[in-house]
Order: sequence, then structure tokens, then C-alpha cells
Amino acid sequence: MSQIDEYLASHAAWFEQRLCDFLRIASVSNDPAYRAEVDRAADWIAGQLRSLGFAAEVCPTAGHPVVYAESPPVEGAPTALVYGHYDVQPADRPDKWTSPPFEPSIRDGSICARGASDNKGQLLTHVFSARAWIETAGRLPLNLKYLIEGEEEVGSPSLEPFIRQNAQRLACDCIVISDGAQFGPNQPAITYGLRGIAYYELVLRGPSRDLHSGSFGGTVTNPANALVRILAALVDGHGRVQLPGFYDDVVPLSERERREMAALPFDEKAYLQQVGVAASTGEEGYTLLERRWARPTYDINGLWAGYQGQGAKTILPESAGAKFSFRLVPHQDPQQITQALRSMLESLVPPGIAMELTDLHGSPGVLVPLDSPYIQAAARAIEYAFGRSPVYTREGGSIPIVTTLHQTLRADALLLGWGQDDDNCHSPNEKFSLADFHRGIRASAKLWEELSRVGKEA
Amino acid sequence: MSQIDEYLASHAAWFEQRLCDFLRIASVSNDPAYRAEVDRAADWIAGQLRSLGFAAEVCPTAGHPVVYAESPPVEGAPTALVYGHYDVQPADRPDKWTSPPFEPSIRDGSICARGASDNKGQLLTHVFSARAWIETAGRLPLNLKYLIEGEEEVGSPSLEPFIRQNAQRLACDCIVISDGAQFGPNQPAITYGLRGIAYYELVLRGPSRDLHSGSFGGTVTNPANALVRILAALVDGHGRVQLPGFYDDVVPLSERERREMAALPFDEKAYLQQVGVAASTGEEGYTLLERRWARPTYDINGLWAGYQGQGAKTILPESAGAKFSFRLVPHQDPQQITQALRSMLESLVPPGIAMELTDLHGSPGVLVPLDSPYIQAAARAIEYAFGRSPVYTREGGSIPIVTTLHQTLRADALLLGWGQDDDNCHSPNEKFSLADFHRGIRASAKLWEELSRVGKEA
Repeated sequence: MSQIDEYLASHAAWFEQRLCDFLRIASVSNDPAYRAEVDRAADWIAGQLRSLGFAAEVCPTAGHPVVYAESPPVEGAPTALVYGHYDVQPADRPDKWTSPPFEPSIRDGSICARGASDNKGQLLTHVFSARAWIETAGRLPLNLKYLIEGEEEVGSPSLEPFIRQNAQRLACDCIVISDGAQFGPNQPAITYGLRGIAYYELVLRGPSRDLHSGSFGGTVTNPANALVRILAALVDGHGRVQLPGFYDDVVPLSERERREMAALPFDEKAYLQQVGVAASTGEEGYTLLERRWARPTYDINGLWAGYQGQGAKTILPESAGAKFSFRLVPHQDPQQITQALRSMLESLVPPGIAMELTDLHGSPGVLVPLDSPYIQAAARAIEYAFGRSPVYTREGGSIPIVTTLHQTLRADALLLGWGQDDDNCHSPNEKFSLADFHRGIRASAKLWEELSRVGKEA
Repeated sequence: MSQIDEYLASHAAWFEQRLCDFLRIASVSNDPAYRAEVDRAADWIAGQLRSLGFAAEVCPTAGHPVVYAESPPVEGAPTALVYGHYDVQPADRPDKWTSPPFEPSIRDGSICARGASDNKGQLLTHVFSARAWIETAGRLPLNLKYLIEGEEEVGSPSLEPFIRQNAQRLACDCIVISDGAQFGPNQPAITYGLRGIAYYELVLRGPSRDLHSGSFGGTVTNPANALVRILAALVDGHGRVQLPGFYDDVVPLSERERREMAALPFDEKAYLQQVGVAASTGEEGYTLLERRWARPTYDINGLWAGYQGQGAKTILPESAGAKFSFRLVPHQDPQQITQALRSMLESLVPPGIAMELTDLHGSPGVLVPLDSPYIQAAARAIEYAFGRSPVYTREGGSIPIVTTLHQTLRADALLLGWGQDDDNCHSPNEKFSLADFHRGIRASAKLWEELSRVGKEA
């Protein structure tokens, strides 16, 4: 690594210039007016990969192209797949920007431009780290594949079919993604778990029309009364979901995980204050971070019935509905949850009510065991470049494309965010710390080495 | 009564002609275009009362005038207050009418015109019955007061203040109202009870904005989850409202009432079929009619929270709200219910949620004991004129003006509907059976006699 470190030090300015080149391309994916710029960004990143001797393609899709590249084969070495995106958020309020969004400028040690952190700067760390290997050692210590899309900011509509159609080509031992934030300034993190989701719409229908609550109240089942009764029955007073078997497949938190989470410098009061609530509630027996990251939930997302206007209207509504969802944790299965839910609801629906349950969306959680050799390799690489061990975090939400990659390729995902929470990724004045950019390149270069050893140890 | 019966028989055609005169006046109260007709109807009915030697006034209000009249005093005799209305529903779909709505025509033994049953025809029975007494006996056997408004079809906004301001003038022993239907064809009824109501809006507020259900689910109290839990807790699985003390003041159904209700020719299946439900539910231990008329209820009238659109939106909503109401029975007190509700809700609101409860509307129920001498007098009068005993019914809904009269004047209300359920009161082709019209006049004439004796017996 000493040769590589020297190379990185001497090429720092060159890396920054190339990042600026990339940032000058206004590859806003949600606006057809930027179509040519989006294409230019795809060509630019493909060109970078080709200049390393990689076989790189710009693959057309129904939307913006996917860039796919492979490094020359290294026999017997493991394969890592880098996922990233070359498209950016719009910069639709130019008056709010201190410097123009597509003219990168350096201020206070950060490079300021739309896409600096999300995701051009972070993505390039994994490209420049490969360049460092090739220009010093002449070759990579492992096989690299790059999957770089142009629709991440619009929900990746073309990537999911691309992954399914190209699953064999994309085969890999682990997936590397840097498209997020560290836990805090100078505190890198490895995100090793994401929650899944199971989202439903429930409609209960009673009488054929709204009824006068005087003439019919007490005689005809009120769908809104039935709805609140049923929705309330899905959870107990201790925050435990009441679906039979709901917790059966939940991977419990290990002692190590609970210790790591408890040790995180997390300010619960500040977390609650930022959303204006005085107290936290949830499943009993777990800390806030445990509940947020590693425990399933039940949340009503929407409710409707009868009269919602001003004043009083004395009706017994003809129907009542709700949207609700469970955040799932590994290894809960959304389909099994749906089955358990349907039969529980059927048992709860009172006479005089017809039930309609729609499964709107289901996706399992993702978990890479902390003792995975890939996690350990990433931890060593991060410690090497950042000078301190990463903390281990999970996400309360889902990242659908990570779930798709994880499920389709059956490979561990390494979520190594090099950014910071205040990078303004979807706001004016997006920025990315140059120190983090260079540490990211160095960590990535070390990661290739560490990952190459995983195969050998096995 | 034999002289009176003769008079009624010989004046049948005259009564019908006068009813037709009244029906030709298009006193539609909800449309300013009919203002002059509304005034003309007030003058017409005041003129009828004056022609009997009654002191009749057309009293201006903020809206349409109230007609008030008093018969010459009969010392030592009780006083009955007749309530009715001279305004009518609109007849806005003239093409749906077989004959023009304000040109009365007689078809199949019914007089067809807007207002025939609701309320001009029914109201006039109590005016013509007085005429029969005066033109035969030379005087009434009791004191009569008439309170006839022109805004019943628009919610009686001016009458409530009028009643409160004129409570002393309106003082009476009982209130007589014919503005409804018999239990069925040739089955007269006395409605001796109305339910009251206590209507609320509840809003629960949590975080200061909608939150991502992944990042915050399981940590911040979800107002929609809290709402369904609280609303569900207000009633148990047997249909019993859980507010402390809710049933304390409920007047239980007497054995006689249960017997009378059970004996009614009520077709439960038809009742449910007309509103498209297969089964009835409600408080356990009571029949459908008992639950509808004489037991309090809890109905959610409206619900709202979060996302109500198409598809899925993964939010934890910032607030959730509901409108709900209790139908009350005598002698539940809406204000006590509000107090009990507020403290129960306060005990149920979880940490992290602020509650806002609004009391939108409260009104107690009305009950005239079946053994009231006025009810017995009315029953004898009905039996005399209709040839069969009335059945005793209650209403599941409220009639706010009856409650106001009952409460302000502290007098029993006799609800003696002469109409039929299929009179099309608020639809095209309104009609009123001429047989019922004449039986109503005769029952009313007999009622004056019977009521005059109540005072003497006491």
C-alpha cells in the first residue's frame, strides 16, 4: 500500500480536477431538458472506466442508460460489484446557491456543486482507487464490476429489470456502495442492515350508503368503528404486533450489536426535538436506536371515513379505510406476513362488514452479519484510511435497489457512506469534504486489497 | 262529540278546499325567490286562526316570521301548545311530479302537493278541530296556543331564540305536534321518546410534520395509531360504551315498553335490506328496535389522517382526527358525558401526543312516560278517530326543536304523526291521505276534550 499511498498523495489535485469535470455535467435525471447532459455523464464515467482498461458499456434502457464495466479478470480472486449513480438531483433554486450548482468551487475544505456528495464524489472514490492499483501495481488484486445508473434520483425504474436480466453477468461476492453519510464528522460507519416493509390498504364496507346515525346507530355495524377496533387489535399496549408468528423469523439483536448501538454517541433528545415531540414510545424492552434500526414496527400511514369537513354531520359512514405498514427486519418474509394478516383480519371483521385488503408493496430487510469477512475487510480498510474504527449502524428505512441487488445476486452489501449528514444532498449548496473524498479513495484502495484476501483465507 | 262529528262530516269538503288554498302558496323557505310566498303562507295561517277569534300575531324574526296565536282563555282548563310549520321543502324537479307541486290534485284518495303531509295538512288538523269546537260548542274545552314557524325545513334558526325569549307566553301543560308518520297504514302511533346526542371532534397531534416511517417508525408515537387505540377503547366487544358512569342515568326500558316494542310488526330483514347489510350488530342483550330507540350508541362519523390517495406513502402522519358521537337516551346529560369523555381521553393519550377535544353539539333525549295522563288522553283520542289503539314508538334520532320546547317549557310533548312513511315528504309527488287528514281532525277534536279532563282529574 505504500506505493499506492504515494500515488494517491501525488494525484490528489488530479482527482479533484476530474471530479470537477464530472460535476460540471448537469446530469439532472428528472427533467427531459437535461437529457443530453445525462447522456454525457454516462459517457464520461464509461470513459473513465475504459481508460483503466476496463470493458465498459453504456447500456440503453427504457429510461437513462446504465453504465456497466468489468475489470480484466484476475483468476481465483473474489469479485466486488460497485454500485453508484451518475445522475443528480435538480438544482431548481439557483438563487439559494452561493456558487452556481454546476460550476464546482472549493470552500472551507469542501467541493461545492450539485452531485458532489450524492453521488459523483463518492462514486469516483471507487474508480480512482482502481486507477491507483493499476498505475502502481499494474493490476487489481481482485475482480471489479461497476453498475452505475442514471435514474437513482427518480426511483431507479430501469435498474431493477436490468439487474434481473443481467443477474449472471453481475454475479459477485460482495456489493460495495458509497452513497450515504458517516455517523458524524470524522466518524465513519458501516451500515450493515436495512429494514424491509409490508404495506397494505384495508377498506371496510358496510351499508350501501351513508346512513342517518340517529335512525341506524346501534343497529347497523359502523365500518369506522369496526376499522378502529381492527387496527387497534394489531398491536398491544406494549408495542408488540399481534399477528400470529410475526416475530418468529426476526433475527434477534446480538449482544455485540446492542453494545455497539448503546455506545454510539446518539443524542435522543435532539432527535426528538428536531421533529417536535417531547417523548418517545415504541416496543418495550428496546432502546430508541434498537427500535429504529432492528425491530419491526406497525404504523398507520393514512385513515379515512365519513365526514371530514367543518362541524358535525350525523352519519354512519358506508365505508372506512386505512393504509398501514409494517417495517420488517431480517428475516421476516413479507408474503408470510400478508398471509397472517389476512387471516387475522378475516377473524376480526364483524358481521355486516365486507373487507378488502390490498397488498400494496412488500420487500424484505437486508442484514450483513457483523462477523461477515466482507464487513471485517471493510472495517480494516476504513480504519486504515480514516484513522479510526467505523461504527456499525443500520437504517430504519429501506433502500429498494440494495434489497434487489442483495436478493438477486445473493451477495453481502457493504454500505460505506463517505459523506456527512449536512452535505445538503437534496438541498441547495450541496458539498463534499475533500478530506473525506481522499480518505474515501484511500479506504477503497485498501478495501480492494482486504477483499482480495477474503477469498484467500476462505 | 256527536255534534262535533256531525260538523266534521258536513265540513269535510270545506276543510279540503282550505287545505288546497294553503297548498297553493309556494312557501319554500330555503330560496329567497319565494320570500313573498312564505310571507303569504304566514298571513294565511294567521288569518285562519284569527277567524276563530284567536289573538294571532305574525312575529318578525331574523328569518321568516313566526306565527303565534292564543285562543280566548278558558279558566281552570289546561293549556296545549300546538307546534307546526307553514314552510315547505323545495319542489326543484317539477318534471318528476305527476301534477304541479303547488296545484293540489286528488288522486287515489290522497291530496297531492308539496307540503300536503309536511306539514300543512297535518298542521291544519289542529286548526280545523278547534274550528269544530267553536262552531258547535261555541268555545274550546281548553286553552290552545299555536306556534307555527316558517323555517323548519332550514333548521329552525330563528325559532330557538324565539322560544327562549317567549318562554313565559308559551307556557303550557303539553305540546302537540303532528309532523310525522304513523307506524304503518292504518296503524297510528304515539312517539313518546327521542334520543339526544353528544357530538365531538378529536384531533391528536404528534410530530411537527409528517415523518418518514422508516427513519422514525418505532420511535415516535404515531398519532393515527394512538387515535384508533383510543377510539377503540371507548366501546367493548359487546357494544357497551366504556365511559365511566355512561349508563348511570339511562332510564331502563320498562317491561311494558319491551313488550310493546316486541309486539310491533317490524320487519328486521327488510330494514337491513334497504341499506344493503346482511346482519345487524349492536349492544348485546337488546333487540334491534330497542337498540335503535332506547339505548345509547357510539358511532364514529368521520376519520382522517395522513395519506388518503392512490398507492403507498410511507409516512408517520403528524396528526389524526375523528368526529364521533354518542346518541343519548333519557336521562343522560350531555355535559356529564363530555366531562367523563375528556378525563377518559386524557388518561388514554400516550406520551408524545397532544389532544384537542371539541364538543360540537350536545342535546339530551326526550321521554314522555307511557303512563303520562297526556299520552293516555292522546291514545283515547286516536282510538276514537282511527278505530284502533296507537302503538308506542320512539325515534332513534333527535328533533332539536322538540328537545328545545320540552326543555324550555318543561312540558310533555305528544308526537302524533298523521302521515305515512311513503308520503314523499322530501321527494317529488308529496301526498297526504284524505282519510288520515279527516281522522286527524277528528282525533285532534277528541284530544282537546280528553286533555281538558286531564286537568280536572288531577
